[in-house]
Amino acid sequence: MADSGGKQEFYVGVDLGGTKILTGVFTSKMECLGKAKMSTKAQRGFSAVIERIARCLRDAVDECDLDLKNVRGVGIGAPGAVDPDTGNVIFAPNLSWKDLPLQKELEKQIGLPVFIENDGNICTLGVYEVEMKSKPKHMVGIFIGTGIGAGLILNGQLYSGFNKTAGEIGHMIIEVGGPKCACGNKGCFEALAGRQAIFRRIQTAVKDGQKTILTDILGEELSDMRSGALRKAVRRKDKFIERIVEETSVYIGVAVANVINLVNPDTVVLGGGLIDALEDEMMPVIIKTAKENALAGTAKGIEIVPSKLGDDAGIVGGAVLARRKTK
Amino acid sequence: MADSGGKQEFYVGVDLGGTKILTGVFTSKMECLGKAKMSTKAQRGFSAVIERIARCLRDAVDECDLDLKNVRGVGIGAPGAVDPDTGNVIFAPNLSWKDLPLQKELEKQIGLPVFIENDGNICTLGVYEVEMKSKPKHMVGIFIGTGIGAGLILNGQLYSGFNKTAGEIGHMIIEVGGPKCACGNKGCFEALAGRQAIFRRIQTAVKDGQKTILTDILGEELSDMRSGALRKAVRRKDKFIERIVEETSVYIGVAVANVINLVNPDTVVLGGGLIDALEDEMMPVIIKTAKENALAGTAKGIEIVPSKLGDDAGIVGGAVLARRKTK
Repeated sequence: MADSGGKQEFYVGVDLGGTKILTGVFTSKMECLGKAKMSTKAQRGFSAVIERIARCLRDAVDECDLDLKNVRGVGIGAPGAVDPDTGNVIFAPNLSWKDLPLQKELEKQIGLPVFIENDGNICTLGVYEVEMKSKPKHMVGIFIGTGIGAGLILNGQLYSGFNKTAGEIGHMIIEVGGPKCACGNKGCFEALAGRQAIFRRIQTAVKDGQKTILTDILGEELSDMRSGALRKAVRRKDKFIERIVEETSVYIGVAVANVINLVNPDTVVLGGGLIDALEDEMMPVIIKTAKENALAGTAKGIEIVPSKLGDDAGIVGGAVLARRKTK
Repeated sequence: MADSGGKQEFYVGVDLGGTKILTGVFTSKMECLGKAKMSTKAQRGFSAVIERIARCLRDAVDECDLDLKNVRGVGIGAPGAVDPDTGNVIFAPNLSWKDLPLQKELEKQIGLPVFIENDGNICTLGVYEVEMKSKPKHMVGIFIGTGIGAGLILNGQLYSGFNKTAGEIGHMIIEVGGPKCACGNKGCFEALAGRQAIFRRIQTAVKDGQKTILTDILGEELSDMRSGALRKAVRRKDKFIERIVEETSVYIGVAVANVINLVNPDTVVLGGGLIDALEDEMMPVIIKTAKENALAGTAKGIEIVPSKLGDDAGIVGGAVLARRKTK
């Protein structure tokens, strides 16, 4: 398709998740030319995952009728604490990784410059540059997926703090003594509003006799539940799922209020699969709750908006990072 | 005392609170030469308060055998949202002030350059420069008084965000559906761990029959309760007050964990009258709770320390601000 004569003018973004790897090839104007997807298979260990990332990356490049030599750089977001300077993943519980040289090993495999960042940061970077055209001065991106990640842009720069873990909003405690979180603590935002927490709540209620259309759609076991199934149930006026979605939106609104009180950004962007699937239902409740729960005066003029990038925020952000770093 | 021949080498810091005004005169090395204190009398209105600030300021200067002409500048912290650029107080609920020109009117009264900031910011600035010698890169100061204020130093700079209200940590919700806060919301950090919240909890329990040494010290009405009285009760092994102090420390620890997860500073400083009075009892519980509740890896190497400035943090910060601005 793209006849570039080997000129390095493309960028690859990689979204490395606990369950899947997503790769995308982008022009220098951040237009996506093609994507590929693969399961992570984290249980096979670090080397196997590196090989899968490389394969998924080659698949996306090949899909666009390009070659690795057309690619100027690769940006990758990893779930957990990463050190962008050393290129190491410090701690990624979903992958069972600790102090592993992701950047170095991937560079060995593909022979291209690789840059890494925390996934919340990289999604925020993608939304900030491509969707918001770098206009906000202070922006917080919140991404609701299996877990909940976030990133902070302060004074136009990615801010990651002392241990490079700023933006771990999923583990902000908003209900002392609340439900147990995967991290071991109680009442974390993620344990109340993350996709996994919601799905567990639904499954438990159904086991206790709660009726829902979801069992018609997915079967009694409610296996392989996704955000899209929730949308279907809400569109079909399932009262129970409507209530779950509303409760979740209230928790998200409280977390946004906390971010406004503490960091006071001009823009809060909400993204990820859940928001993408249920934007119309969730955003009004999130915005109303956030404005009610932020201290009077602190939320004035602050934009609280949904991202349109959906699941692509990570690969867009990866490509943006690669473009920034190879300029 | 100080024979300066009229040379402007001194700075005045002003801590304007809802109940009292504190002023202090400082050398350029931030040594305090003298202080003065006066009740605010906010109910008398804006002009009356400005006059009282001017009077309290003159008292402190006179106390040091100095004259206003020896003062290079005045820095003042106000409780609420302030705009340091216009010098206006945007919103100060404790004073019932809205959009009032504090800087301009005080300058008129005293004929000296005045600089204003939010009180949480100014206390943080004082602790940062004088106590921490400007060493932290990212520091959060949390001050527990009647209410709870905070300030953020990020990359060595005071960060105040879009509406200049960053650091409103007292209204971070940490217990959805929890006790009602003065701001109108529920479960705010201040409603769980602010001095006023603690005092109310004690008064309510005593009315319900709870026994405590405090009634011996202060009388059955428990009027004029201060942090010092709590310290006395704890030192005299009052089990009930010990429990209240421990619960409060846990809430503060949770709030510190949230700050670590979200902002990830290298240093968290805790100050204000309550911490000052009960440092030995509270700090170990705060540190333990914060480290347990921050996501694994995020709190590594972060210093959580008490400020030694006590009630003087505000006047020290005011003097630091004046020195910064008149350099």
